[in-house]
Amino acid sequence: MGSVAEQEHPKKAFGWAARDSSGVLSPFNFSRRATGEKDVTFKVLYCGICHTDLHKIRNEWKNSKYPIVPGHEIVGEVTEVGSKVEKFKVGDKVGVGCMVGSCRSCDNCANNLENYCPKMLLTYGSTYLDGTITYGGYSDFMVADEHFVIRIPDNLPLDASAPLLCAGITVYSPLRYYGLDKPGMHVGVVGLGGLGHVAVKFAKAMGVKVTVISTSPNKKNEAIERLGADAFLVSRNQDEMQAAKGTMDGIIDTVSAPHPVLPLIGLIKSNGKIVLVGAPEKPVELPVFPLIGGRKMVGGSMIGGIKETQEMIDFAAKHKIMADIEVIAVDYVNTAMERLEKADVRYRFVIDIAKTMKPSTS
Amino acid sequence: MGSVAEQEHPKKAFGWAARDSSGVLSPFNFSRRATGEKDVTFKVLYCGICHTDLHKIRNEWKNSKYPIVPGHEIVGEVTEVGSKVEKFKVGDKVGVGCMVGSCRSCDNCANNLENYCPKMLLTYGSTYLDGTITYGGYSDFMVADEHFVIRIPDNLPLDASAPLLCAGITVYSPLRYYGLDKPGMHVGVVGLGGLGHVAVKFAKAMGVKVTVISTSPNKKNEAIERLGADAFLVSRNQDEMQAAKGTMDGIIDTVSAPHPVLPLIGLIKSNGKIVLVGAPEKPVELPVFPLIGGRKMVGGSMIGGIKETQEMIDFAAKHKIMADIEVIAVDYVNTAMERLEKADVRYRFVIDIAKTMKPSTS
Repeated sequence: MGSVAEQEHPKKAFGWAARDSSGVLSPFNFSRRATGEKDVTFKVLYCGICHTDLHKIRNEWKNSKYPIVPGHEIVGEVTEVGSKVEKFKVGDKVGVGCMVGSCRSCDNCANNLENYCPKMLLTYGSTYLDGTITYGGYSDFMVADEHFVIRIPDNLPLDASAPLLCAGITVYSPLRYYGLDKPGMHVGVVGLGGLGHVAVKFAKAMGVKVTVISTSPNKKNEAIERLGADAFLVSRNQDEMQAAKGTMDGIIDTVSAPHPVLPLIGLIKSNGKIVLVGAPEKPVELPVFPLIGGRKMVGGSMIGGIKETQEMIDFAAKHKIMADIEVIAVDYVNTAMERLEKADVRYRFVIDIAKTMKPSTS
Repeated sequence: MGSVAEQEHPKKAFGWAARDSSGVLSPFNFSRRATGEKDVTFKVLYCGICHTDLHKIRNEWKNSKYPIVPGHEIVGEVTEVGSKVEKFKVGDKVGVGCMVGSCRSCDNCANNLENYCPKMLLTYGSTYLDGTITYGGYSDFMVADEHFVIRIPDNLPLDASAPLLCAGITVYSPLRYYGLDKPGMHVGVVGLGGLGHVAVKFAKAMGVKVTVISTSPNKKNEAIERLGADAFLVSRNQDEMQAAKGTMDGIIDTVSAPHPVLPLIGLIKSNGKIVLVGAPEKPVELPVFPLIGGRKMVGGSMIGGIKETQEMIDFAAKHKIMADIEVIAVDYVNTAMERLEKADVRYRFVIDIAKTMKPSTS
């Protein structure tokens, strides 16, 4: 006899799930709802591995409910649409990012900021409107309300665009919202990982001068030559940091490991902005004098709304921006998680779901 | 034989100064420069006592140089103008706030933000362009470059408008810059002292709904009935704080004593802003998740530029905004400092300089 997850919906689905805080992923039979009238069903082709997936499968944020099928950088091809679906048809290339639902009626939803809706539903690990748990993209197919489905432009490769649905929008949105997108501006990007490397690409495409700030001197060549950054600062090098003082209009800080904010405040000009998109679990120490003395601000940003996500991916298509990826087979996923933990990936793992995920015969 | 301060300039001046970190103020003979071609000389009529004066005379920020003649909320009447002065004539009512100089050529100066100029010269305790130390408004007259002189509109009482030159602009500027000035918005004001009480008045005049947030329940009636606040929250009352969660567009935090920021972040809506204008000496603990999850920001602000200070005082005149003051004689100033330390003043001491400061005969 199958589990609840396997029987609660009419469509048999297959994926890889973590069963407990060991975080080990293994094959998992479950089910998905039938295509509702506003739903889009699509075959998953690729799914990116986000650092959040690692936090979640290991219950590092203390709110995980098992089993967890991770994955919120999902792209694929539409196989069925509901009777009232207006934007998509069978065969379309589509994607789903971090969320699959929101209240659709609050101020944030009305302003296309579903990502800040208090009732926002995550792509995996949330309780959906019908009371069942949402499962992510480490699976053979997805069913989602068309409102939360993104169209992937034809000229973007599906594997390398998958990470844009989380990593991409996470850095694109604050560049826009905090006004760090004006040609000629100088923006720092702290951390050169999954988020940071696409931040460099988006900022450059916006006409901004980009300086990467990193603890790792050995990323310098790559940052400049491969990703197109204009400059590179080793954050532990006092001389370099001193020389760059007061030169930046803003900073996108992608690092979630604890690190001091004071040196970053020094790097920005008066009226400059530091935007935190990586979330350290502990509070950061915020010195107030330097903030006041330069009318500087420290803000946060979390992914982006659906309208802006579509805008981001269209901008990416126009400027040929994609993530630098390492495509893996699904049975490599546990090894990939270990490597991700050590930041041993340039810069995003993407699972080739369609070619490597074989349905369970159990 | 007199001191250097008494002899370095041609004009004999008289004031009250602190000689050491005891902070005790006593009569002081010094001198001021002759009226330069761009200078305005004015007889000081009133000078407000700012909490900064207390920090400075006691060397609490570890950068005081003695003797210190404090005072940067100075109003008076023009007695002489230089040959190239364009904006003022003898008899005009004028004021000087926190600064008397800046480089006039950097980006900030070019944008009327002299207050963020790295070479900004403070009204007292700075080394002026000629190498002499600046002395503030606890003195019989002032000489200042007309660029840094503010015109006091006729319908504002001079005593109650003096504190606007520091306290007023300190809260007016962030209300404008951070966009917390739109009618119908809801803004919190933390702390009901010299800054807070004028923040309530300015925000109300801008059409904003104002809630005062304070540790002192006994300030409630006064906040609402005398100052015109719409609501009052006791920050230690969990129920009140919970009920107000997510209701504010922004908060002006005027408190420099250490206090937690997390509850304030809870009070603001998504996209809300917390502006720190009181400067705690120690860093504050900034929790990152709540910031990211609501695209919230924490920023600073320090007084305002000269153009905006004039705009503020004209706005105050139009809306009949002035500080609530207790006018004192100069020989009460040491007692006033003790009371200020205990927050025993509603809400600003102002020294009646003209009537109570008698020149030394020594």
